[in-house]
Amino acid sequence: MATDIQIAQFLDAAARGDLNKLTALVCQYDFLINEHGENGWTALMHGARNGHCNIVEYLLETGCDKSLANEAGQTALDIAKFWGHTHIVNLLAYSKMCSPSSPSSTSEDLACYFSRTFLDKMSQKRTDSEWLKSKQLHPSTVYIVFSDLSPLVTPVADEHDPEKHLIKLCRFGIEDVKELLANPETVLIFLGAESKPPQEYLKGNNIFDEQIVWFALNSSDVSIEKFRSKFAECYFVVSAMPGLLQLAEEEAGIVAQARSVFAWHTRYSFCPTCGSETKIEEAGYKRTCLKTDCPSLRGIHNTSYPRVDPVVIMLVIHPDGNQCLLGRQKRFPSKMFSCLAGFIEPGETIEDAVRREVEEESGIKVGHVQYIACQPWPMPSSLMIGCLAIAVSTEIKVDKTEIEEAHWFSRQQVAEVLSNSDSSFFVPPQQAIAYQLIKHWISKHSNL
Amino acid sequence: MATDIQIAQFLDAAARGDLNKLTALVCQYDFLINEHGENGWTALMHGARNGHCNIVEYLLETGCDKSLANEAGQTALDIAKFWGHTHIVNLLAYSKMCSPSSPSSTSEDLACYFSRTFLDKMSQKRTDSEWLKSKQLHPSTVYIVFSDLSPLVTPVADEHDPEKHLIKLCRFGIEDVKELLANPETVLIFLGAESKPPQEYLKGNNIFDEQIVWFALNSSDVSIEKFRSKFAECYFVVSAMPGLLQLAEEEAGIVAQARSVFAWHTRYSFCPTCGSETKIEEAGYKRTCLKTDCPSLRGIHNTSYPRVDPVVIMLVIHPDGNQCLLGRQKRFPSKMFSCLAGFIEPGETIEDAVRREVEEESGIKVGHVQYIACQPWPMPSSLMIGCLAIAVSTEIKVDKTEIEEAHWFSRQQVAEVLSNSDSSFFVPPQQAIAYQLIKHWISKHSNL
Ligand SMILES: [Zn+2]
Ligand SMILES: [Zn+2]
Repeated sequence: MATDIQIAQFLDAAARGDLNKLTALVCQYDFLINEHGENGWTALMHGARNGHCNIVEYLLETGCDKSLANEAGQTALDIAKFWGHTHIVNLLAYSKMCSPSSPSSTSEDLACYFSRTFLDKMSQKRTDSEWLKSKQLHPSTVYIVFSDLSPLVTPVADEHDPEKHLIKLCRFGIEDVKELLANPETVLIFLGAESKPPQEYLKGNNIFDEQIVWFALNSSDVSIEKFRSKFAECYFVVSAMPGLLQLAEEEAGIVAQARSVFAWHTRYSFCPTCGSETKIEEAGYKRTCLKTDCPSLRGIHNTSYPRVDPVVIMLVIHPDGNQCLLGRQKRFPSKMFSCLAGFIEPGETIEDAVRREVEEESGIKVGHVQYIACQPWPMPSSLMIGCLAIAVSTEIKVDKTEIEEAHWFSRQQVAEVLSNSDSSFFVPPQQAIAYQLIKHWISKHSNL
Repeated sequence: MATDIQIAQFLDAAARGDLNKLTALVCQYDFLINEHGENGWTALMHGARNGHCNIVEYLLETGCDKSLANEAGQTALDIAKFWGHTHIVNLLAYSKMCSPSSPSSTSEDLACYFSRTFLDKMSQKRTDSEWLKSKQLHPSTVYIVFSDLSPLVTPVADEHDPEKHLIKLCRFGIEDVKELLANPETVLIFLGAESKPPQEYLKGNNIFDEQIVWFALNSSDVSIEKFRSKFAECYFVVSAMPGLLQLAEEEAGIVAQARSVFAWHTRYSFCPTCGSETKIEEAGYKRTCLKTDCPSLRGIHNTSYPRVDPVVIMLVIHPDGNQCLLGRQKRFPSKMFSCLAGFIEPGETIEDAVRREVEEESGIKVGHVQYIACQPWPMPSSLMIGCLAIAVSTEIKVDKTEIEEAHWFSRQQVAEVLSNSDSSFFVPPQQAIAYQLIKHWISKHSNL
């Protein structure tokens, strides 16, 4: 054990920004790194409080635990945010270690499925038809193929668990898809260029040296046979749920983007303002009415652009803080319970949509609402906005047209379900934001 | 001045939940109420930390300052949230006093224009045609009238400032609008029933004793003359911006709801899946295709429901924490600068949309993104999702197709613009979420 004097010296060096002293102490007594002094303040917190980037950087590299909270419940990230040390906020928010536990450290920490991608959308290139044409023919360009919104995938082995079924998108070159491209039924969209995660920005790397560009194709007239020569076991994921949940996280974001845009083309091929046919422009991100005097051609109208439907999904917390409200829709698998959810209406805020939906579905009145994280959900094109909602009433009155049943579940019941030790009910898989909201709530106060 | 011993006794009573002792001390020494002890902890914070509702309630009623922060920068609300005392979170979040200053206390504090309404949407009634029909004819029912999306209003005097031009929605009864209703061109939507703010829920009041129901009408064929008998000076707000910004806040939310839905009817009167005509259902919230074999009739499709376009709007903070990025679009009035903004794309999170838009428009790379508040914007039907975004690069490269110019502005420059003491540039009016984001940033760290 470190002596109080060693700890005091160590924390003092962090607070003053004295990196030499700090390094010397860590080399001698590496157990100091996560020690805390008065009020639970660690060296990382002191460094974050006083804006010492070098101290924070060193401590993170040395492997300190950034998730620790002081007696007031604040992590180093909370402290850096409050004091406006933005360099340090970035260091703490992007370092790869486990997630902080405080309520204000939220959105960065929940990596939601369908939200990760390694493509930079490069939307400014959508109107550059010369560039697009040359990239379309480029030998390094990657094509992925959809049939009626179902992506073509191939099974892969999971290194960690051979029992687990994983799938990968089949990647093709221009030669493989030439025939399909020639079919007038086929819709082609530009997805973007391969990019690197934001960590690289911090290091100042130039990430655009070599750009591999991606396109996606969708058609209802695809013969799978010709693709079998390249991927012998390939198939179309016809049942999107749960089929698409077997994708690697980084490919899930690409499928989310492509599937949403293709779904829009399928549903919105006619001009809703006048009923005429439309043509595709801007690399698949615009449809323009073919009737020359259509009002949709005067100015910019949302009728020409893909639709994204914002949805609120919320974990409602009991006024006692120790129970949460979960419900089940009729279409759910038996014994599955989840967060309540619903579409945001025109003229409504996120917070008011949460209050309205919870009261409509369960009769529970909600007070405070806190945004936690969001998730694209490409069935067909929703943006799930995840919140914690604090109830101010407790009596449940289920609206049977919306959900089948809803109950308060104790923190312990839910924790057991997450650890698979209770099988009287279950919650959606971890790829769903509902799971992440539940886990966030459970882990947030688990140390109390 | 209070003695240290009095303060210590007072804080101790709050921490133990001893309301009698606390009350006795306040009656004798009322200056104690906002005093703090070690680490800047006030009585309110101690009460919030230990879950003493009675203490928190008493202190709020006595007029204590809930915006105070301890040395770690936490308000009582932050502390209550962290420790999961949800009753207390609600007490603190809904008490009417000034806003807390800590980063985790956000969305409740920014009351954004177009987001407030006094109507309960009662969406479950939209399918109850009997109920709707009887309410339509009820003498207490309120109708508001739109012509080509412009609401009919009448000027009112501002009690505080006779120079200021305020407007109010003209409210009519069934007799006033009977003729207009008979016109097949007219679109009728149900808005909801008059309600009371969420504070009332906390007191357990039954708020549905008497329900005054609201409807809205839109037509391109309205003669204003017949309405002049009731409102001599009434007129249609033809220029939505800035015309609609003169509404009282509570009516602005109603206009946001009605105008968005009417705009959808105007733009989406044909089925986008097959191009056929549609009919209006569900009290104006659904359009159903009239072609019997249209795919949009099989299952539930977003083509039948009003569209809400999620937009990110963000104040980008310089890595040094003391400057923010503002830009101007070509269509802006001369000298006006604002936050950057853009539509969320399919398959994209809020945070990634912020990063993409900022980089596209200004060349600045963004790291951490924090949701602050949102605002409906009914031109025609956007949901503006407001964030702070922390830059990790500083060199501005403006994309001229998107914005005209963008610069870093110092905290002091922006503070002066908000207080109208600098006129070299200006920002949007306080009804715009851009203004609220800027003000939030300025006030957040103003005490540092
Ligand atoms: Zn048209
Ligand atoms: Zn149709």
